[in-house]
Amino acid sequence: MTPQQIMVDVAIGNWKLTIKRATSLFDGLTEEEFLKPIAPGRNRVIYLLGHLTAVHDLMLPLLGLGERHHVELDELFLSNPDGTFAELPPVVDLKRYWNETNSLLLEKALLLTPEQWLERHTAMTDEDLVKDPTRNRFSVFLNRTNHTAFHLGQLVLAREKK
Amino acid sequence: MTPQQIMVDVAIGNWKLTIKRATSLFDGLTEEEFLKPIAPGRNRVIYLLGHLTAVHDLMLPLLGLGERHHVELDELFLSNPDGTFAELPPVVDLKRYWNETNSLLLEKALLLTPEQWLERHTAMTDEDLVKDPTRNRFSVFLNRTNHTAFHLGQLVLAREKK
Repeated sequence: MTPQQIMVDVAIGNWKLTIKRATSLFDGLTEEEFLKPIAPGRNRVIYLLGHLTAVHDLMLPLLGLGERHHVELDELFLSNPDGTFAELPPVVDLKRYWNETNSLLLEKALLLTPEQWLERHTAMTDEDLVKDPTRNRFSVFLNRTNHTAFHLGQLVLAREKK
Repeated sequence: MTPQQIMVDVAIGNWKLTIKRATSLFDGLTEEEFLKPIAPGRNRVIYLLGHLTAVHDLMLPLLGLGERHHVELDELFLSNPDGTFAELPPVVDLKRYWNETNSLLLEKALLLTPEQWLERHTAMTDEDLVKDPTRNRFSVFLNRTNHTAFHLGQLVLAREKK
């Protein structure tokens, strides 16, 4: 295996682990817990579930891996804070979108060669990449893994303390 | 630049960004805020500061980059939960350890070649690495970046909501 392929495998392994932790957390919460804020006056779990799903759905075009499937989530979970809308999609639907989005993303990401991981992401021009070769797909992927971990740190607070 | 060097640069950039965000968060809190829990009944900021510092100090030997400097933090912030000890080191000292540890770690990490990033970490045997080549320094580094992001997600809750 080439060094760059090992590094890609490490990054994908790290992503999978983070997604798995978030998914088992979501799977372990009751409907009621999804409607509780993670701390007084902060985002509710349902909002973070929708937010993470929207961000991961956005990764598809950003990484050049395909079209978005859930543009409708942006208004609810990305461009407006929690509490803006009285009605949100049912948790069961959001959980399905979460799983489908992550499955699709992983499936497509696994097809990329190390060379493709180092190509620019679609929000960049070729000139930008020449100036800074680290602004590539790989960078977006590590950054979004961190983003999920960031919110996972908040989501664990929604669980009952043992 | 080789593909593997670009990937290392991406990983280091991501680490630096995460450390920078945590550091400016710590720098923006009052002494009093360090003693507040991030959510009712949860860890205090001072505990998370000590915890992250201990984990990063531990990265030095784990990555084969040198000896530990703050073994004394383990009992306070790693092997026991917050609230175990009535007295903790002053915040000003902990902040200094945090900055020193991260500076040292980055300085040493920047000296590693891509080949060295793919060598096993010191908690692994050579045989383990043959079985799974992704269990290397690079993997530890991405994992710990995530760990910092995880707690950063909690730390931002300590800031007054605007």
